[in-house]
Amino acid sequence: MALRRALILLADGAEEMEVIITSDVLRRAGIEVTLGGLLGSSPITCARKARILPDATVDDAVKTSHDVIILPGGLPGSQTLADTPKVGDILRSQLSSGGYIAAICAAPIAFASHSIQKGATLTSFPGVRGKLEEAGYNYSEDRVVVDGKMITSRGPGTAFEFALKLVEILVSAEEAKKLHEGMLLK
Amino acid sequence: MALRRALILLADGAEEMEVIITSDVLRRAGIEVTLGGLLGSSPITCARKARILPDATVDDAVKTSHDVIILPGGLPGSQTLADTPKVGDILRSQLSSGGYIAAICAAPIAFASHSIQKGATLTSFPGVRGKLEEAGYNYSEDRVVVDGKMITSRGPGTAFEFALKLVEILVSAEEAKKLHEGMLLK
Ligand SMILES: [Cu+]
Repeated sequence: MALRRALILLADGAEEMEVIITSDVLRRAGIEVTLGGLLGSSPITCARKARILPDATVDDAVKTSHDVIILPGGLPGSQTLADTPKVGDILRSQLSSGGYIAAICAAPIAFASHSIQKGATLTSFPGVRGKLEEAGYNYSEDRVVVDGKMITSRGPGTAFEFALKLVEILVSAEEAKKLHEGMLLK
Repeated sequence: MALRRALILLADGAEEMEVIITSDVLRRAGIEVTLGGLLGSSPITCARKARILPDATVDDAVKTSHDVIILPGGLPGSQTLADTPKVGDILRSQLSSGGYIAAICAAPIAFASHSIQKGATLTSFPGVRGKLEEAGYNYSEDRVVVDGKMITSRGPGTAFEFALKLVEILVSAEEAKKLHEGMLLK
């Protein structure tokens, strides 16, 4: 299998469980994951105060192509993703080159603010449902939703399912099943 | 409620999901969590390459008392916890002052190597079961095991249950239930 690459966009206030469950599970599947610092390479202070070092700046990371660009939730991290024009540019460029985009928890608000795939079906943290419906998305309460090249999920408690769905799409259903068992998920 | 405090012992090769799910869930419950660097305050490179900054060194952190000392799994992190005499001292001092000790995944091997509560019932990552039985523990396949002041669990996929059991013990069953729902766990 060709090497798969994923880029996770990190800003202060990212939900650390969503960042770390996703990066760890994807790396277990052999996917090369970069934690990209949106505003540079300084440590990120997450929503619940864990401090994580980016692997690279986003500006450097996007010089390489990625199979999926991932937006973790958490506040104010998701709001920063929604407010930063560069995130819109990255998402549009990713879709135009045929790649996947993924967001969990509150992060789908960044799709809304950057007008990405409006009208598509998605899910999110329940608290931002109204915002997404107003923006014109078709809302689902499924724990993980795949609509074309867009994958969304609901919160820390669905992060393993989100990560395993990405493994299923980028690697194989067999690999996702093997990881599910090996990590002792229910 | 009095402020509750938890100390997580961090060494290179710690399983980042077990570190972060535990710290995040406990902090959501209002517990003050310190990620203590076993060998200093430099960033820890985790088992799947995430780099996390300790909040303090373990030497500084243990000047304050904690309700629970937590050992995350992951390799070689668990082996370092098992091989470092200071960890044995911290665990013995914690038990003698009536506090809790907790370990997940491969980390219960540190209880064995430091001769902590031999004969007690515990669980672990299946791969180290043999070692723990040889060391004289009574082995359980339950996802989380509480025996007196010792709490153990099995792996990344049981980390939410492990963290919520700690919340139940240190805060309340109501708080654990509220978090379970708020995080959208199944
Ligand atoms: Cu969130």
